[in-house]
Amino acid sequence: MRLRNKPWAGDFLRNHPQFVIQQPFEWKGKWNDLFGNEHPVHIEVGTGKGQFIVGMGKQNPHINYIGIELQESVLVSALKKLKEEELPNVKLMNVNASQLAEIFAKGEVERIYLNFSDPWPKKRHAKRRLTHHSFLSIFESILADEGEIHFKTDNQRLFEYSLVSFSEYGFLLKWVSLDLHQSDFTDNVMTEYEEKFSKKGQKIYRAEVKLRK
Amino acid sequence: MRLRNKPWAGDFLRNHPQFVIQQPFEWKGKWNDLFGNEHPVHIEVGTGKGQFIVGMGKQNPHINYIGIELQESVLVSALKKLKEEELPNVKLMNVNASQLAEIFAKGEVERIYLNFSDPWPKKRHAKRRLTHHSFLSIFESILADEGEIHFKTDNQRLFEYSLVSFSEYGFLLKWVSLDLHQSDFTDNVMTEYEEKFSKKGQKIYRAEVKLRK
Repeated sequence: MRLRNKPWAGDFLRNHPQFVIQQPFEWKGKWNDLFGNEHPVHIEVGTGKGQFIVGMGKQNPHINYIGIELQESVLVSALKKLKEEELPNVKLMNVNASQLAEIFAKGEVERIYLNFSDPWPKKRHAKRRLTHHSFLSIFESILADEGEIHFKTDNQRLFEYSLVSFSEYGFLLKWVSLDLHQSDFTDNVMTEYEEKFSKKGQKIYRAEVKLRK
Repeated sequence: MRLRNKPWAGDFLRNHPQFVIQQPFEWKGKWNDLFGNEHPVHIEVGTGKGQFIVGMGKQNPHINYIGIELQESVLVSALKKLKEEELPNVKLMNVNASQLAEIFAKGEVERIYLNFSDPWPKKRHAKRRLTHHSFLSIFESILADEGEIHFKTDNQRLFEYSLVSFSEYGFLLKWVSLDLHQSDFTDNVMTEYEEKFSKKGQKIYRAEVKLRK
């Protein structure tokens, strides 16, 4: 995604502590306290402009959602959407995926969404892909026993790579579609990117995987 | 595949015992004796008109191939191709996939090829698909410890189903392509069906799976 420089972004995020978690590392092991309930926690890694996480929050009020995005200047768009909806079950945070094991205790996350992650097409950049085993190891360390990763992308090579990477790591493939919008999957919430590229006829690939017992 | 009635097919197959194995059940545990060497045995389940198995046999003289086909009237086309080439490392047999555990001992087969298997699109026919768990169980019972299944199809739904079925059964996905003919896979030998449908622009899906240790 091309980023516009937004020098005011940091202040804007800091000025909305009810929506943007300011000290994420302090909540490790206590996320239910933050939300004030025992509902399951689902996170989206790379939440971008927030259409997915805000849409999911509206659709499922009994699930707590946290949208994670590294780029402040992108996360402000998600914050604007969230402010309009004022959802108590959706929070945002500005951290790096590599930090997640320091933010969540083992078992605190029931589901991880990876949507249209950067494909990093060059082989020498494979370890930057969010489905590389180094990230899968971090995800495993925060997921509940029955936890799942739900992954979608329009990038064929990334999808091929990810299916093999999930399987080699030890995840079980429980659902796959090679054309999500023509599949029997209901309640799909589209990301901004998905909406744009599926209109151009691009197929969307989607998989659900879970940890093997 | 539409089948023409060929009343002479049975006799034609029986008259070529050097190419068509007449008593497959008697070779269980002794397939190396039949071939007269210790080379690995690879089988194709649903060998059709034989272009794949004969092509593989030519390409890899140090592997023993067995093409398995239920339809006598189709297998005769494979036999004609094999007669022309006179390959000592390729044999055919006219049996049902469900009988394989009575034909091969555990570990006797290093690799199983499933090429453009019947997709049986109706849900109530799922158990007839060659990647249904009941067939995977038969395949497991004849495969070597490091044995693999190599699967290709142009049927998107069958491929989706099969990826999940392999994974749920306990196979590890080691290689996947969602567009075989544009992938980095070399030495692909096409089946008759593959040649015809890929010319029409149909994408070919392909996966390699192996037993988890």
